[in-house]
Amino acid sequence: MKFVSIIIGSKSDYEVMKECGKTLEKFGVPYELIISSAHRSPERTKNYIKDAEKRGAVVFIAAAGMAAHLAGAVAATTIKPVIGVPMSSSDLRGEDALLSTVMMPAGMPVATLAIGKAGAINSAYLAMQILAIDDDELNVKLTEDRIAKAKKVETDSSEIEVRL
Amino acid sequence: MKFVSIIIGSKSDYEVMKECGKTLEKFGVPYELIISSAHRSPERTKNYIKDAEKRGAVVFIAAAGMAAHLAGAVAATTIKPVIGVPMSSSDLRGEDALLSTVMMPAGMPVATLAIGKAGAINSAYLAMQILAIDDDELNVKLTEDRIAKAKKVETDSSEIEVRL
Amino acid sequence: MKFVSIIIGSKSDYEVMKECGKTLEKFGVPYELIISSAHRSPERTKNYIKDAEKRGAVVFIAAAGMAAHLAGAVAATTIKPVIGVPMSSSDLRGEDALLSTVMMPAGMPVATLAIGKAGAINSAYLAMQILAIDDDELNVKLTEDRIAKAKKVETDSSEIEVRL
Amino acid sequence: MKFVSIIIGSKSDYEVMKECGKTLEKFGVPYELIISSAHRSPERTKNYIKDAEKRGAVVFIAAAGMAAHLAGAVAATTIKPVIGVPMSSSDLRGEDALLSTVMMPAGMPVATLAIGKAGAINSAYLAMQILAIDDDELNVKLTEDRIAKAKKVETDSSEIEVRL
Amino acid sequence: MKFVSIIIGSKSDYEVMKECGKTLEKFGVPYELIISSAHRSPERTKNYIKDAEKRGAVVFIAAAGMAAHLAGAVAATTIKPVIGVPMSSSDLRGEDALLSTVMMPAGMPVATLAIGKAGAINSAYLAMQILAIDDDELNVKLTEDRIAKAKKVETDSSEIEVRL
Amino acid sequence: MKFVSIIIGSKSDYEVMKECGKTLEKFGVPYELIISSAHRSPERTKNYIKDAEKRGAVVFIAAAGMAAHLAGAVAATTIKPVIGVPMSSSDLRGEDALLSTVMMPAGMPVATLAIGKAGAINSAYLAMQILAIDDDELNVKLTEDRIAKAKKVETDSSEIEVRL
Amino acid sequence: MKFVSIIIGSKSDYEVMKECGKTLEKFGVPYELIISSAHRSPERTKNYIKDAEKRGAVVFIAAAGMAAHLAGAVAATTIKPVIGVPMSSSDLRGEDALLSTVMMPAGMPVATLAIGKAGAINSAYLAMQILAIDDDELNVKLTEDRIAKAKKVETDSSEIEVRL
Amino acid sequence: MKFVSIIIGSKSDYEVMKECGKTLEKFGVPYELIISSAHRSPERTKNYIKDAEKRGAVVFIAAAGMAAHLAGAVAATTIKPVIGVPMSSSDLRGEDALLSTVMMPAGMPVATLAIGKAGAINSAYLAMQILAIDDDELNVKLTEDRIAKAKKVETDSSEIEVRL
Repeated sequence: MKFVSIIIGSKSDYEVMKECGKTLEKFGVPYELIISSAHRSPERTKNYIKDAEKRGAVVFIAAAGMAAHLAGAVAATTIKPVIGVPMSSSDLRGEDALLSTVMMPAGMPVATLAIGKAGAINSAYLAMQILAIDDDELNVKLTEDRIAKAKKVETDSSEIEVRL
Repeated sequence: MKFVSIIIGSKSDYEVMKECGKTLEKFGVPYELIISSAHRSPERTKNYIKDAEKRGAVVFIAAAGMAAHLAGAVAATTIKPVIGVPMSSSDLRGEDALLSTVMMPAGMPVATLAIGKAGAINSAYLAMQILAIDDDELNVKLTEDRIAKAKKVETDSSEIEVRL
Repeated sequence: MKFVSIIIGSKSDYEVMKECGKTLEKFGVPYELIISSAHRSPERTKNYIKDAEKRGAVVFIAAAGMAAHLAGAVAATTIKPVIGVPMSSSDLRGEDALLSTVMMPAGMPVATLAIGKAGAINSAYLAMQILAIDDDELNVKLTEDRIAKAKKVETDSSEIEVRL
Repeated sequence: MKFVSIIIGSKSDYEVMKECGKTLEKFGVPYELIISSAHRSPERTKNYIKDAEKRGAVVFIAAAGMAAHLAGAVAATTIKPVIGVPMSSSDLRGEDALLSTVMMPAGMPVATLAIGKAGAINSAYLAMQILAIDDDELNVKLTEDRIAKAKKVETDSSEIEVRL
Repeated sequence: MKFVSIIIGSKSDYEVMKECGKTLEKFGVPYELIISSAHRSPERTKNYIKDAEKRGAVVFIAAAGMAAHLAGAVAATTIKPVIGVPMSSSDLRGEDALLSTVMMPAGMPVATLAIGKAGAINSAYLAMQILAIDDDELNVKLTEDRIAKAKKVETDSSEIEVRL
Repeated sequence: MKFVSIIIGSKSDYEVMKECGKTLEKFGVPYELIISSAHRSPERTKNYIKDAEKRGAVVFIAAAGMAAHLAGAVAATTIKPVIGVPMSSSDLRGEDALLSTVMMPAGMPVATLAIGKAGAINSAYLAMQILAIDDDELNVKLTEDRIAKAKKVETDSSEIEVRL
Repeated sequence: MKFVSIIIGSKSDYEVMKECGKTLEKFGVPYELIISSAHRSPERTKNYIKDAEKRGAVVFIAAAGMAAHLAGAVAATTIKPVIGVPMSSSDLRGEDALLSTVMMPAGMPVATLAIGKAGAINSAYLAMQILAIDDDELNVKLTEDRIAKAKKVETDSSEIEVRL
Repeated sequence: MKFVSIIIGSKSDYEVMKECGKTLEKFGVPYELIISSAHRSPERTKNYIKDAEKRGAVVFIAAAGMAAHLAGAVAATTIKPVIGVPMSSSDLRGEDALLSTVMMPAGMPVATLAIGKAGAINSAYLAMQILAIDDDELNVKLTEDRIAKAKKVETDSSEIEVRL
């Protein structure tokens, strides 16, 4: 079974990153979520990735703050696509994590998303878009989600709009 | 046939983005590359995406500078994964393009990579990592590339290293 | 009838952008205000602009946060003047929206104003300054407003000033 | 006769800002261009604005670098729309001029454009979009320019594009 | 009588800038404090400066936020030393005001201090240091203040220090 | 006896920097902690360093905010290793202190750590790593701490992890 | 004799800072200029300041790059006004020096000017404005300089201006 | 034998980092220098560190650019002090590498130095300061170097200084 693997660098990132899990659940996409650190538990991180890959992990999501090396460390361990979510966990409010995640050297991409909650949710969406390439059912769900989002804009607007 | 579609926002981005094409060619991955602008040719952009998708485009790469809206516009048109490469084409040297590309709202991810040439090359790698999920041959090639890169580090080092 | 059209990218921008509407009302300038998104409802955005233009919209105001593409998308759809208001809706506090709005390429201007509430109010003022070119009554009102503002400075000062 | 007035803060800004004049000429829009400084010649600036306004100036364009106060000073002198172009003339490469131009307080808008040449060209376009509200001929020209720009994208693309 | 003139750009800056007045009072230095805006009341600002100068103002302190033009406008009106205090009054938290105040062009200095309260207090100190050049009594007071500040460090330390 | 000397620039930094002391205590490493300022008490700072050095201080930790000169001033007074901790004590939230601490000229290093609490704790760790080079007991403790940290990651993870 | 004392932190700053000396010479204001470093020669810096003060130095100008502590160190040694000029001598192009110079804590002002050459020239102007408070002749010269600068704007303009 | 180990992340960093080696040589401090990457050769990096540590490496210096993870990866592998030098190798000119290096989480310090050449030289100095704690001869050399540097300031000054 293909699944999405979410690795978060610290317990404090869970509050934001559980949005990623929730989003995957909403679409019925199987996932794992663990805490593992690039610095505090590099062996655990590496071993988990190797094992998860064998069991079917096809996309990895890594979320970390500050000098956010987690996504890069995951990217160095696997050739599966790695999605990075910068967390806002220092006085620099995610600018540090964003640059540490996105500015990867040639040959080692990390697919970086927005800082914080928007990035957390989008990491689920991007993982699903990747899975949907070969999953017609998921493709349909994502298409329906788009239509629902467009409808939601209209509903939101109707509550406040001013028309001449 | 599954292929990668590269859209660049302006002629001036070609010099950098041709590295993406070259990288895909090196691995034998089919791709298209066109210039189309989110602002100057929005209809062309939309029509091309719809058509490319029908013909087999499964990953889109969009490169633009300044208020770089191209990747976001592509992401709004398709549910295929969209990779964004920020170009350094103003006095702000890519910081504008980076933030315009990566800070996408929830539900509309753009997989953002490094500013400039590293991002251009990595857009090819990320696209291939996505394709390799269901392509064993490509998987092997990417694995070999990793091994070659590690070897290259040793060769580079041997030219300058100082050992006791 | 000439009117001002305000498009806001998300419900969460309404609290700030209603200041724009209030300001226009104070001067008796007709306006419309809707929610529509560059990414979630691109068709709605385009159709609304085309329709509004036919009905008399002569200035568009677009407000969005994060990778704020809305004003640019409006600018790509019409040759009417487009005013952009960057919202502070991420951890980067509007710096992302500012650069995404102001750094437009040659030929596609977005008249960008300050981040947040000051920009929201000023979008009304700028729209009225444009309308006032051919509206003597509005011209007088804006001139009176300036005089009132100068008076207000004196009143404010008198409450705290220290004079020798 | 309605015309556009361009004020540049220093001789060194001319090289970039002459692009604004050229663009207006291409569309046959009358303009004036002078050097005047918010700091070195505040009286000249004020007198010129008052005089130009009487003679038909309906839009002002102000370009300055560093702590760019010129556009704000113009905005404080007239209720005509004021367009600001931040110049890159210090080690901070226009970030100083951008923030000094765009972050105007409520009631005193400056319609701010991109740093440097793109902003210079766009200041002409924005001024023309404002004039075109009541000028059908200019409206047609701007519409044709858009079509030409879209065509140019196709031509540019045809020189380099890779199609499957 | 020589005195210090404090001009603040808006009522909202008073809370911070009253620290400047308090500091001057503590040292018995006469001052005036008024609200006047570079944009909303340019004439008032100019007239006040000219008048204050005649009455003995020898140093001007100007405090403003956002696109903070006030200190520059004062500097353009007088050849007396002008001290600028950037206020943190937008989402950019004073970075805008700092650059708008400090990056003045050659020939028009603004003596810029720290953002916010530290700058407010230091504007009083800098003004007094200037006055003290020809005021032996004030010189003594400032010297004593330095000694007191050094003592205060020792007292503060003694409350928490850990010594072996 | 070798010890670590902690100098903090202001009372307000104590709340954060006491974490440094606590960490050293946990490992049984002797330290001193005083308040002394680069600007307000330069003589005290210099005298303390000279004295502490004679008594066995082998590593200095200096914490300061804003234009944080303290660590640099310590570095100019001793050739012992100096560790700098940037404090977030202005509207610029530590970016000012970080650059003022880290960008030291050639020949005068300051070993700079993260802004705020993470840096405070890490200053203790870095000091201990330096001491441990010649202290086998401390070496063992630091190694055990690493193992404990890796274990803690597993414990944290077990509370929230989702496994397939 | 009252004079201005210029201290530059490194030989590499001389090229820019000699503009300060030239400007003072043009106005016939006596000055000294030496190289002395806050870090490499703190004793020399302190001794020079004490000596210069006795000999008549009434304003100090300090120019340094990177973690620019020189102006702060001068400010900690004297209660004479201290003017700081941030130099652009690292990859951060003066942003580091600007923040290290301007963000001084309460009680220790450094009158900070623009990065680089504009700041170098303005440091001479600010010093002269301070001296001119009690020097009528210099006052006249500065006033004449202002008039000349306004005239220069007109001359510059006449070479390029476009008038209708 | 105790020695310093220098690891650089890429061949392109050698030009700058050889300054570190040169500086160590000047003081007769033994060192090794190799290229190894956190991402491209993580195993090589880990194995080298383990081996070097056994052979006497007591301080590690790691230099890398962009999303500079190398120093952090070294810090995760050893409890020896790790010095990080941010390289300026992208359009963001070292700001990315600085934040990626310095903002390490609690428990994993990287002693970060200035971007580029100053940091490269200082990494040698910091390593030597650490070694000098238990090396009287090196201590003397570093003290002499300080005296020479202070003398050099005087020599430099004498070439340009202006004295009254």
